[in-house]
Amino acid sequence: MTPSLFHFALSPACRLLRLVLAEKGVGFRLEPVRFWERPEAFLRLNPAGTVPVLKISEQAAALSETRALIEYLEEAFPEPNLIGPDAETRVEVRRLTGWFVDKFEQEVSGPLLRERVLRGLMRDGSPDAAAIRAARWNIQVHLDYIGHLAMRRRWLGGDRFSVADLAAGAYLSVPDYFGDVPWDRNAHARDWYSRIKSRPSFRPLLQDRIGGYPPPAHYADLDF
Amino acid sequence: MTPSLFHFALSPACRLLRLVLAEKGVGFRLEPVRFWERPEAFLRLNPAGTVPVLKISEQAAALSETRALIEYLEEAFPEPNLIGPDAETRVEVRRLTGWFVDKFEQEVSGPLLRERVLRGLMRDGSPDAAAIRAARWNIQVHLDYIGHLAMRRRWLGGDRFSVADLAAGAYLSVPDYFGDVPWDRNAHARDWYSRIKSRPSFRPLLQDRIGGYPPPAHYADLDF
Repeated sequence: MTPSLFHFALSPACRLLRLVLAEKGVGFRLEPVRFWERPEAFLRLNPAGTVPVLKISEQAAALSETRALIEYLEEAFPEPNLIGPDAETRVEVRRLTGWFVDKFEQEVSGPLLRERVLRGLMRDGSPDAAAIRAARWNIQVHLDYIGHLAMRRRWLGGDRFSVADLAAGAYLSVPDYFGDVPWDRNAHARDWYSRIKSRPSFRPLLQDRIGGYPPPAHYADLDF
Repeated sequence: MTPSLFHFALSPACRLLRLVLAEKGVGFRLEPVRFWERPEAFLRLNPAGTVPVLKISEQAAALSETRALIEYLEEAFPEPNLIGPDAETRVEVRRLTGWFVDKFEQEVSGPLLRERVLRGLMRDGSPDAAAIRAARWNIQVHLDYIGHLAMRRRWLGGDRFSVADLAAGAYLSVPDYFGDVPWDRNAHARDWYSRIKSRPSFRPLLQDRIGGYPPPAHYADLDF
């Protein structure tokens, strides 16, 4: 009775769920979904039409919504604790998780994935160069914010490794697949990312390939 | 040592936090913030520049990010339980909370608040009629979804009243302030909303007024 994760390989939210499952040692099966085609069978699992969707067993209900799934996994598989030991850490880890899942997604990873890949898969015209430029501009602020946190703390959310690191790593890994992260800009951010990238949970993400969209040479390189 | 909530009266996220605090019986002081002016003192409390921000005491750190705050309050003040008693309910309540905080906000309440009020407060041109039209079109689907849930369940998240109801109520209350909710469209949704609106926690929201933007006559009417 292996859980199934309905996913798209370059969706940062799906990547985040894969990382959380792997860090918790929960085995799972990946079920690719062409969610942008809004397949009817998939809309029955999740009326919002978004990935990831998790089915814990064949008979279980389909569970969805990224942050609801993170909380679910934290409660169902409490070890290792990925949100934090005390109230102040937990609100900070959740704030940062929301920062990446919502804000970084809207300002960076969402537009880049749409323009660089989904538009082609949907045969929806050519990429909007201005949207790509804006996202590449926005990413600088986020990279500096990550660097600012990484300089002051051992991990992004505090002393302990947490889902804030997994969220930042998952959401950065998608622009990184496109070569859109200006790593030279911030050494603290780059060092933190190389620590994240070296974790066993990250390895499968670095092996994902989407036909027609090869990643740059440094993408899977742990000493980039 | 009363907690302070930095807020804007017509921000649905702030309204949601006020409802959660009130339902849990936690007294608090409201501190209005003109967040759209990005005041420096406020950016020090929350680098994202968004409301709500919660300070539990004068000395405590400023806590932010809507869903992180909800989880924080649920852990700090467990009674009454607003997320649910079991794993399946909890993931469903969190999914619906995310539906309103993220999806409804992007498709309905965000554009309406921006076009109808913030643009005027920021002296940023005249309202974009197409954006208002799109939001008023989108709200129909959300109203039908609420009606669909309200017909099948006692409350939106299941048998028990939960933060899913508070989220839907808070996020609907803003378009309702503008007269943008087509209540005649769905009797189940309207009946559910009149139950929410009658709760003591909702009363202060119905008394909020923003200068220059009076609500329609039915706004504070419990038998609308």
